Amino acid sequence: MLPVVVVHGGAGQIPKQRTEQSTLGVCTAVRAAYTILRGGGSSMDAVVEAVTQMEDNPSFNAGHGSVLNAKGGVEMDAIVMEGKTLGSGAVSAVRNIANPVQLARLVMDKTSHACLTAEGASQFARAMGVPEVPEESLITEYSRMRWTKNLAPEANPVECQMGKMGTVGAVAVDSEGNIACATSTGGMLNKMEGRVGDTPCIGSGGYADNNVGAVSTTGHGEAIMKVTLARLILFHMEQGHSVEAASDLGLAYMKSRVAALGGVVTVDPRGHWAARFSSRQMSWAAAQKDTLHYGLYTGEHFTQSIDHPH
Amino acid sequence: MLPVVVVHGGAGQIPKQRTEQSTLGVCTAVRAAYTILRGGGSSMDAVVEAVTQMEDNPSFNAGHGSVLNAKGGVEMDAIVMEGKTLGSGAVSAVRNIANPVQLARLVMDKTSHACLTAEGASQFARAMGVPEVPEESLITEYSRMRWTKNLAPEANPVECQMGKMGTVGAVAVDSEGNIACATSTGGMLNKMEGRVGDTPCIGSGGYADNNVGAVSTTGHGEAIMKVTLARLILFHMEQGHSVEAASDLGLAYMKSRVAALGGVVTVDPRGHWAARFSSRQMSWAAAQKDTLHYGLYTGEHFTQSIDHPH
Repeated sequence: MLPVVVVHGGAGQIPKQRTEQSTLGVCTAVRAAYTILRGGGSSMDAVVEAVTQMEDNPSFNAGHGSVLNAKGGVEMDAIVMEGKTLGSGAVSAVRNIANPVQLARLVMDKTSHACLTAEGASQFARAMGVPEVPEESLITEYSRMRWTKNLAPEANPVECQMGKMGTVGAVAVDSEGNIACATSTGGMLNKMEGRVGDTPCIGSGGYADNNVGAVSTTGHGEAIMKVTLARLILFHMEQGHSVEAASDLGLAYMKSRVAALGGVVTVDPRGHWAARFSSRQMSWAAAQKDTLHYGLYTGEHFTQSIDHPH
Repeated sequence: MLPVVVVHGGAGQIPKQRTEQSTLGVCTAVRAAYTILRGGGSSMDAVVEAVTQMEDNPSFNAGHGSVLNAKGGVEMDAIVMEGKTLGSGAVSAVRNIANPVQLARLVMDKTSHACLTAEGASQFARAMGVPEVPEESLITEYSRMRWTKNLAPEANPVECQMGKMGTVGAVAVDSEGNIACATSTGGMLNKMEGRVGDTPCIGSGGYADNNVGAVSTTGHGEAIMKVTLARLILFHMEQGHSVEAASDLGLAYMKSRVAALGGVVTVDPRGHWAARFSSRQMSWAAAQKDTLHYGLYTGEHFTQSIDHPH
C-alpha cells in the first residue's frame, strides 16, 4: 500500500470554466510527488513538491493566483508537518515570495521555532536567500477581477468567496512509513490585512503523526479553526475509525456545530487514504500502486495508470 | 459548583525572589475574575479581566514584563475563546499595546476573523481606538537584565529560559454554564522576530467548548504545538476522564513523546477544575464557592476565604 500521496486543490464551488484546469493541476502535482516517493524520496519532499507545483499554478488560491486581501495585496499562509517527530514549520501573512510552503519547511528545518509571521518571516526568507518576488507576479487577472467585483456596490461577498476557496494541500506516506502533510493558501478574498486563517495553525490546517496518520484541510478557515478539524479527524482515527469514516465524522461535526463546509485529504500509516468533502466540489488526486485517482464532484472517482500520458 | 475560575502565571522554574510576587499576582487576578462571576458576569469577562491584571503585573511574561526577542523588542501573542459558539479571537506578534488579551477579544467580537498578526493587528488596534504605548513601557529592568545575560558569551539560553516561562492564562465557567479561556504571553526569551508560539494557536494555547470544558496552557510553546495540548486534554475529557486525569494524561504524553514540560488549568461544564503541571513549579489560583485556592509547587494547595484580606 506504500508509498501513497493525496492532494487537494481546495473545496468550494469551482466555476465551470476552471474545473478542467483545477483537475489537471492536482493530477500534475500528485504525479510529481509520486515520482519522488517511487524513487525512495521522503513524504516531506513529496508533499512540499506537490504543494509547490500548485502554488506555481495560477488555478489555485496559493502562491501565484492567491486571492487579494481588503487592500488588494497578497498575504499567504503555509504549514508543513512531519509525523515522526511531530515537528512543524509555518509562515503566516508572508508577502513577496513565490513558495510559502518552502519557507515553512525552512522554518521547520533551520530554526527552533514552529511559526514565523509577517515581516519576521520575510527577514528569515532573506536570511535564507529566498528570492523576493514583486507582488504583481503573484496576482492573476482572475484574482484582480474577483477582488474588483467583490468591492462593487452590488457584490455579495459570500458568493464571491464561493468561486475559489482553493487552498491547496497534500498528505503522504513514504516507503519507510514516515508521514507528512503540507498546506498553503492565499487565504480569504477581501480578508483584513494581517488575517491569519486555519492553514498555518497546527491541528487546523494540517497535522501529521506517524502513529495515526495525516490530514490537510480546506474550506472556511475560521470554521475549521473552531473545530481544529485536522486534529479532530485524527482523534477519530485513534478511536478506531477508518480514514474515510473519520474524515466524514469531522466534516459532519463541523457542519452541525458551526454550519460550515469544507474538505480534507487523509492518510493512515498503512497507506489507506481518503479525499472527502462536504462542499459541492473539491479537486483532488491520489497516487498509489502506480495508479492515479482523481475527482471533483461527490462520488466521482476516476482512475488511470500513473504512467498514462496526460 | 458554579461559577468557577482558575488562572495560571506560567510553568517553569521561578527564581526564589519572585515566587511571592507570582503567587500574589495569580491570587489577585483570580479574585478580580471571581468578583465578576459572583456578580453574574460572563466567563469571557472574567477570563479577560484575570489575564488583563496579569498582563499589567510585571511579575509575568505577558504585557508589561514580557520577555525580549532576539532584537530586544517586545512582540506578544494572545487568544480568547468562548465555548458556546467555539468563537475565538487571537493576535500574534503584536507590538506597542498594553493588553493583547483585550485586542484578541476585539478580534473575536468585531471582525469575522479569528486571528490578526503583526502590523495588521496594530492597524486594527488603531481602528478600535486602542492606545499605542511605547515599547519601553512594556519592558522591565528584570526582562532587560535577562536578555542581556542571555546574550553574554557564557550564557546558556535554555537555562535562561527556565527562570520565566510565565505565560498567563485563565479558564472559567459562569453561572449560566458558559465556558471561556484566555491566554497571553510575551513568548520566548530571545525568540526570532516574528516567532509565533502556541498561545494564539487555537487548540494549543487554549480551547473552550461548553460541551466539554476549557484549558489554558503554559510551557515550551513549540512542544505544546506538537501535541495541540489544550485540545488533546479536552479529547481525553470527552473520553470520560476527569479534569485532573485528562490534564495529567496530556502532560504525560507531551513529556514522553516530545520530552517537554508544561502546565495547564482546566475546567469542565459542571465546575470541576484542575491546575496541573509537569514542570517544577506553576503559580496558579482558583476561586469557587467563595474559597480561594492557590499553590506553586507540586502537591501544594492552600485555601482561604475569598473575602479574607490579603
